[in-house]
Amino acid sequence: MIIIGEKINGTRKKVSAAIRERDAQFIKDLAQSQVEAGSNYLDVNAGTSPEREPEDMAWLVNTIQEATEAPLCLDSANPAALKAGLELVNKTPIINSVSGEKPRIENVLPLALEHKTGLILLALDDQVGIADTAAERMEIVHRLVGLAKDGGLAEEQLFVDPLVTAISTGTDNALVTYDSIAQTRAAYPKAHITCGLSNISFGMPLRSLINQTFMAMCIQVGLDSAIIDPNDRNLMSVLLASEMLMGKDKYCQNFSRAYRSGRIGPKND
Amino acid sequence: MIIIGEKINGTRKKVSAAIRERDAQFIKDLAQSQVEAGSNYLDVNAGTSPEREPEDMAWLVNTIQEATEAPLCLDSANPAALKAGLELVNKTPIINSVSGEKPRIENVLPLALEHKTGLILLALDDQVGIADTAAERMEIVHRLVGLAKDGGLAEEQLFVDPLVTAISTGTDNALVTYDSIAQTRAAYPKAHITCGLSNISFGMPLRSLINQTFMAMCIQVGLDSAIIDPNDRNLMSVLLASEMLMGKDKYCQNFSRAYRSGRIGPKND
Repeated sequence: MIIIGEKINGTRKKVSAAIRERDAQFIKDLAQSQVEAGSNYLDVNAGTSPEREPEDMAWLVNTIQEATEAPLCLDSANPAALKAGLELVNKTPIINSVSGEKPRIENVLPLALEHKTGLILLALDDQVGIADTAAERMEIVHRLVGLAKDGGLAEEQLFVDPLVTAISTGTDNALVTYDSIAQTRAAYPKAHITCGLSNISFGMPLRSLINQTFMAMCIQVGLDSAIIDPNDRNLMSVLLASEMLMGKDKYCQNFSRAYRSGRIGPKND
Repeated sequence: MIIIGEKINGTRKKVSAAIRERDAQFIKDLAQSQVEAGSNYLDVNAGTSPEREPEDMAWLVNTIQEATEAPLCLDSANPAALKAGLELVNKTPIINSVSGEKPRIENVLPLALEHKTGLILLALDDQVGIADTAAERMEIVHRLVGLAKDGGLAEEQLFVDPLVTAISTGTDNALVTYDSIAQTRAAYPKAHITCGLSNISFGMPLRSLINQTFMAMCIQVGLDSAIIDPNDRNLMSVLLASEMLMGKDKYCQNFSRAYRSGRIGPKND
């Protein structure tokens, strides 16, 4: 699994304050703790203020890179903010994200192509928004993968997000995601598939339980990346168990090592 | 899901003592608490003593039926014990189990056919034991389903157990079970599929976590029954979440009802 640590996100109150006050230590701690917990990439979202975003993104990228060597996932719809980040990154980042929406295709996609970055592709567009059926979502996925490949990105640089909608709003909503994941996996065997898993449980009690169970089921049909909180011990436990139970952990070594080092399992085991 | 409550099992110390001492209240409590927790059937295993087993089985069946109306799953390889149980049951039971082993086919299968019971079919035989590949397990499944159907049982009376072997002894062991479940589901759409899930985690730490994750993955590929401890709150939570996340819980009603009544989720939620 490619784990993208989600916590450096300017729409969260504490992170927003740390960005405003240039509290570098807070951001560095957030970066380091996510890497220690197993993040392969760190998502970097500088918040939603169009004027401040480029400068804030630059400060975040520099600050995080002083603390860790992990590659970054530049999370913005703002081309100026993305450019500011792209100029400073030490390693090839992922851009989060391009969808079928016109401004994203016109303004964000070219940056990914120019810098040959990883790229998250969201299965939604201006016409239908988030489609109800896997068939409609796949039409958008095919279109976006086509654009990215034609522009010179390799399949393995793409992270397809087939989208997750709340089970509370539709009994079959999880099935649509599984179906989209499985179809993406079959059509693009080298592409990565990622999801914002926690959307599944909006409006329900026991959200962690639902998110964990849903993650296991998504991994079974082909999910190989997730944007999550890597410090969520229970979620990481289910993630490592799921990989082991999909034959992707030879001799159960990763699971056993994580257990012995105290990274998974109940805290007072 | 068809839940078969596993706790009335004479190979467990306390149950064995209760049987020996004819402690009816202990058995009745075990029966009632499993039914209240959601069991559709109660497994009845009278222990392994060939001389005492028929009499113990008869006592157990009578005792349980005084306490609950749940149908029973008569769990024995001993034809005399099964006969003793079959004579007393108020409702059509399941017989647990017939495999490809000669004594089971010759001595247990005829009882299931005669009494038109439900029947668990284990994918193992005398020649290969538990096969390493799904293809070999399916050969046995096809043979056993054929025998049962030819003898007059309907597909919906059959509970195929494709068998589970420990992930600690083989990196791909879970995959073999998923594959067998999926093939059974495709070949026999009306048959039930059941498993002894906890075998997956023998020899590993964090067994409950592994069992829960494995159950979700088995449900996704077609498992619709399990022999479990229905009083295992965490396992039942994952079970209800899994059904909801497979589109089998309209408007999330079962999950929400179980939550509101306090049957799932952390105890001090």
